Amino acid sequence: MYPQKLRIGIVGLGRLGQRHAQNLVQRVPNAEVVAACSPLQAELDWAATTLGITQTYSDYSALLADPGLDAVFLVTPTSLHADQIIQALHAGKHVFCEKPLSLDLADCLKVEAEAARHPQLVTMIGFVRRFDASYHDAHHKVQQGMIGKPYLIRSQTCDQNDPSGAFMRFAPTSGGIFLDCSVHDIDLARWLLGNPVPKRVYASGSNAIHTGLQAFGDVDNGLATVEFADGGMASFMASRTMAHGHETLTEVFGTAGRLSVGSNPRLNRVEISDVHGVRNECTPDFYARFSDAFLIEAQEFTDAALGLRKLSLTLNDATEATRLGLAMTQAMREKRVIEF
Amino acid sequence: MYPQKLRIGIVGLGRLGQRHAQNLVQRVPNAEVVAACSPLQAELDWAATTLGITQTYSDYSALLADPGLDAVFLVTPTSLHADQIIQALHAGKHVFCEKPLSLDLADCLKVEAEAARHPQLVTMIGFVRRFDASYHDAHHKVQQGMIGKPYLIRSQTCDQNDPSGAFMRFAPTSGGIFLDCSVHDIDLARWLLGNPVPKRVYASGSNAIHTGLQAFGDVDNGLATVEFADGGMASFMASRTMAHGHETLTEVFGTAGRLSVGSNPRLNRVEISDVHGVRNECTPDFYARFSDAFLIEAQEFTDAALGLRKLSLTLNDATEATRLGLAMTQAMREKRVIEF
Amino acid sequence: MYPQKLRIGIVGLGRLGQRHAQNLVQRVPNAEVVAACSPLQAELDWAATTLGITQTYSDYSALLADPGLDAVFLVTPTSLHADQIIQALHAGKHVFCEKPLSLDLADCLKVEAEAARHPQLVTMIGFVRRFDASYHDAHHKVQQGMIGKPYLIRSQTCDQNDPSGAFMRFAPTSGGIFLDCSVHDIDLARWLLGNPVPKRVYASGSNAIHTGLQAFGDVDNGLATVEFADGGMASFMASRTMAHGHETLTEVFGTAGRLSVGSNPRLNRVEISDVHGVRNECTPDFYARFSDAFLIEAQEFTDAALGLRKLSLTLNDATEATRLGLAMTQAMREKRVIEF
Amino acid sequence: MYPQKLRIGIVGLGRLGQRHAQNLVQRVPNAEVVAACSPLQAELDWAATTLGITQTYSDYSALLADPGLDAVFLVTPTSLHADQIIQALHAGKHVFCEKPLSLDLADCLKVEAEAARHPQLVTMIGFVRRFDASYHDAHHKVQQGMIGKPYLIRSQTCDQNDPSGAFMRFAPTSGGIFLDCSVHDIDLARWLLGNPVPKRVYASGSNAIHTGLQAFGDVDNGLATVEFADGGMASFMASRTMAHGHETLTEVFGTAGRLSVGSNPRLNRVEISDVHGVRNECTPDFYARFSDAFLIEAQEFTDAALGLRKLSLTLNDATEATRLGLAMTQAMREKRVIEF
Repeated sequence: MYPQKLRIGIVGLGRLGQRHAQNLVQRVPNAEVVAACSPLQAELDWAATTLGITQTYSDYSALLADPGLDAVFLVTPTSLHADQIIQALHAGKHVFCEKPLSLDLADCLKVEAEAARHPQLVTMIGFVRRFDASYHDAHHKVQQGMIGKPYLIRSQTCDQNDPSGAFMRFAPTSGGIFLDCSVHDIDLARWLLGNPVPKRVYASGSNAIHTGLQAFGDVDNGLATVEFADGGMASFMASRTMAHGHETLTEVFGTAGRLSVGSNPRLNRVEISDVHGVRNECTPDFYARFSDAFLIEAQEFTDAALGLRKLSLTLNDATEATRLGLAMTQAMREKRVIEF
Repeated sequence: MYPQKLRIGIVGLGRLGQRHAQNLVQRVPNAEVVAACSPLQAELDWAATTLGITQTYSDYSALLADPGLDAVFLVTPTSLHADQIIQALHAGKHVFCEKPLSLDLADCLKVEAEAARHPQLVTMIGFVRRFDASYHDAHHKVQQGMIGKPYLIRSQTCDQNDPSGAFMRFAPTSGGIFLDCSVHDIDLARWLLGNPVPKRVYASGSNAIHTGLQAFGDVDNGLATVEFADGGMASFMASRTMAHGHETLTEVFGTAGRLSVGSNPRLNRVEISDVHGVRNECTPDFYARFSDAFLIEAQEFTDAALGLRKLSLTLNDATEATRLGLAMTQAMREKRVIEF
Repeated sequence: MYPQKLRIGIVGLGRLGQRHAQNLVQRVPNAEVVAACSPLQAELDWAATTLGITQTYSDYSALLADPGLDAVFLVTPTSLHADQIIQALHAGKHVFCEKPLSLDLADCLKVEAEAARHPQLVTMIGFVRRFDASYHDAHHKVQQGMIGKPYLIRSQTCDQNDPSGAFMRFAPTSGGIFLDCSVHDIDLARWLLGNPVPKRVYASGSNAIHTGLQAFGDVDNGLATVEFADGGMASFMASRTMAHGHETLTEVFGTAGRLSVGSNPRLNRVEISDVHGVRNECTPDFYARFSDAFLIEAQEFTDAALGLRKLSLTLNDATEATRLGLAMTQAMREKRVIEF
Repeated sequence: MYPQKLRIGIVGLGRLGQRHAQNLVQRVPNAEVVAACSPLQAELDWAATTLGITQTYSDYSALLADPGLDAVFLVTPTSLHADQIIQALHAGKHVFCEKPLSLDLADCLKVEAEAARHPQLVTMIGFVRRFDASYHDAHHKVQQGMIGKPYLIRSQTCDQNDPSGAFMRFAPTSGGIFLDCSVHDIDLARWLLGNPVPKRVYASGSNAIHTGLQAFGDVDNGLATVEFADGGMASFMASRTMAHGHETLTEVFGTAGRLSVGSNPRLNRVEISDVHGVRNECTPDFYARFSDAFLIEAQEFTDAALGLRKLSLTLNDATEATRLGLAMTQAMREKRVIEF
């Protein structure tokens, strides 16, 4: 049935890495996870015990040297992305890498250039929301002209507040809320508006709860506006302080209608009518919201690497998302409009 | 502007009577409440103090003898309705009377016959839901053919549970849950289906919380089915044990679509996203749900009595509602199908 | 990882059979579809080509004789279920069988008896809704006491109208709308109410569009009421004439609240605001609504057959669903209450 | 009952003026509209014929000279507001005036100063949304601490597109979309956040449909961000190009939850399930959305002028709304951040 399977090495087995690994092993029929790489022995043990991945590496270069590998799946810290992608391309491996591509624009461009030298290799950055069935449907409807000409995006990524502040430990390296969270919304906006050219960015932010973020020039709530050269606009919000759950919401305003994706982050189809009113529970985090999309994404990467279809997004999409995220961060920190 | 005002005597000033009185005094421009009648001095004092109605009567016959009155507004116990309406008609007064017309079918028919002898007088039973903007819109859409041919109604009247069981004191005289609550749903079903002829009724009930109702042959939750001669059907539910509020819901199924009125009994346009999820508060009782409809109803009665328009419902509608309510009650008590 | 895989023979490869086969092959890691059985060569070809199942049988007995099989998955006409299950048990195979178990109560009991003689074999009837995440959550909440004591179920299975009337060809053998559709709702009601004993059933039906069903004693819209010995009640609706999509809705009323599953059959998280208002598209059919549940169901069967967990439902559940479905059908046809 | 009625002169009887007049005449029991003023004889005729207001003036000064008047109700062009209010105060009349107070900050301050000289007179600017039951409830919940500390407002005023572009004739004098529409959202944001001091404003805009607005420095879609001195933020959107209706939406984000007012601009409680999906119709315009609020507003003005209660908003609120609206307009036109 699957005469050809893609032989994958998974790199990084933290929480999200484990989920990627499980999807690849159990639910992507033409993927085969043949090796795992992590600096942490416990993670490698987990891979062996839970998923039967017995070929393990603590060293990334050693993994890349494995001739039995067709591809790597990078679920590593952002600061490593660019170098690891370039190394993999040199080693002749297809690469899937979690978003964002890099917090450094020069690095993004370097990766783009390197990938261009390996046209036979697939390099994919995991903008997972593009693979969500609802976003996919919205994009399709826009393409079909259902809402006329789309001219404005409103998109927000709002995380449930973690009173423990655990996310604070990522603060020094996350790049700030716009690069960490809004980068998804930026990508969606570009995708839904047809890749318009940015002209001007403004952003602001504030710390409603986690004032400790200030030390890193970061905020727990941010707002940003982007104006595009063709008159299109986008308004973004990112927050880490929701009480009800993780709420990813995107609205596309067109001249003949509006599409909204995720306006009530329903956990499921259960509605409760009790002393609190009529209500529904909410998705607690991005994984609960996008678990199906992670699978579809992994399937697309696998199929593309096997030559069965073309990727639906480009490395340049990732570069542009970083470019806009950096401009927002700068606008907020310098309290001024950034012109492109 | 209002060259002619309808001079009304309000009869019965309990909770609902007071609300009717306030509507008539303050918000029906061509109505004038010139007298009030109640056996309770406290209620008459309220009318004088709050609404300036200084002409008061403890005796209904005395009120009817007042030549300065054009109409009476009866908000009295159901057991008095038939006789009071007939007396008012004899006295040459227009009559508004709260639903149900009577728990006794013979009395309903007697009132119909008497009213037929006074064609110049308006006699209106307060099926308030017909005057609700949403029900009105649904009825209009059905008439316009928006859902094709309507063939099935599902309607429910569900009251918020009153842990005090205060409603128990009405149990001996309410006629049971189908005549007290479902009578509204029956009227809506007939109205929305175009007055079909009933053929067969079945009903059942149970006491989930208020087991004391059993002593009166009554239940706190009831289900009923009506089959009509033209193949139409209706399914009813009535409950006194909701946790979230008063929920009146009616669905009209047609061959080309379905209309639903009231599926989430939203209190207002506020949505709360917090630790309980995404939610809205609910209308606590029928008055919160239908306060606007009570006003529109009072306006229609006033206009009809002044000859400015025709009534949109008939006394026979009230008779038929009682007929079906009685059949349901009998079906439930005798655990058998009632054929018409 | 999966030291033991369950070797399954899939029997029946119509539309639903194909979906079951795909789930088992691609997404149930510890299942292995080693053989397929169908009287139609085209279906066997599909299995070979699409899923690589090369061991094929046109004869069920031949399949059962295959020593390499641990289990069979029956997606065959209802009239064959009972015999095929009994044969499989005789052959020492675990059995998964689509609902309903049988339209004949004696056959249901015969299957129960036979299964009791093979306690080491798993026999599971596919009441798929129990495996839906939302229904599962609702059941869990009821068990946790979130809504107090559950006392009433309202459940409906409403299919989108098929103007072609293709479903008519199943009319002679479907058993009628209550055994074909409501059997799911009956099972849910029993599950959510804690397996109460039925006492009395009434049902009625009508043909709003597909009058040809009358020839088979069947209807395109049915209503049914069940009273249980403990005072619990259930109200069912089944329809084949919805305009908007497939809508499976179940409400559990409890003394402290109500749970509703599926009240708006949203297709996904996209909301459209345009000239038609604010709206969402709907699930077109039961498979769009329950595709995830079919997978979870297949996983539970596989795990149970491998001894990794216990089944969460029993054969008797299937018998009781048929018993109530038959009583509803009889009540509707004879226009009378059926007492148990 | 109403020993004292407020004798009001209505000034301006365009569409909104007529609605105010009807409310005052028919539904505010302690208001009496004794005179009307308009430069258009047709409007005065309407007042006489429809509402029985026979004392009419074509000249505002003449109206003010009428000793039988306690108050004026100004529903006139914005450019006249400031002068007309000041004149009325000089004449010893209470003043209700439609929003915005003025497009000129100096004029706002002049009015404030004049009003301060007449503390016995009530001067009220009609920020009608504050009187909407849902906004009132949201404000109350914020005050009660239900969502913790409010730190961010997202508010939008989105009008249904008028393909005729009729609103274009107001373009020369409307002050632009931020002063015409967002002024309401600004007022709500200040109210809900507890009157924070603005620090920085940015805005942008674009013409999606009505490119003719460009000639007036105006747009049909605008975005604005306000940062407050206490760390609070607000994000605004205004649009004239919605397909589905008028949508006024305000969200208050607090450290313990979020309140949303108006997220689906339901016309009523009817839900339609048909070939378009599950849907509801929407409020077509601001009056359909806020008709009840206009009445409550008129009642508050009347009561306040009669000394029965205190106004719940101040003239300074109106000044601050204009100040922020002007800053947004400037930011959009000059494409730069405006600091306060």
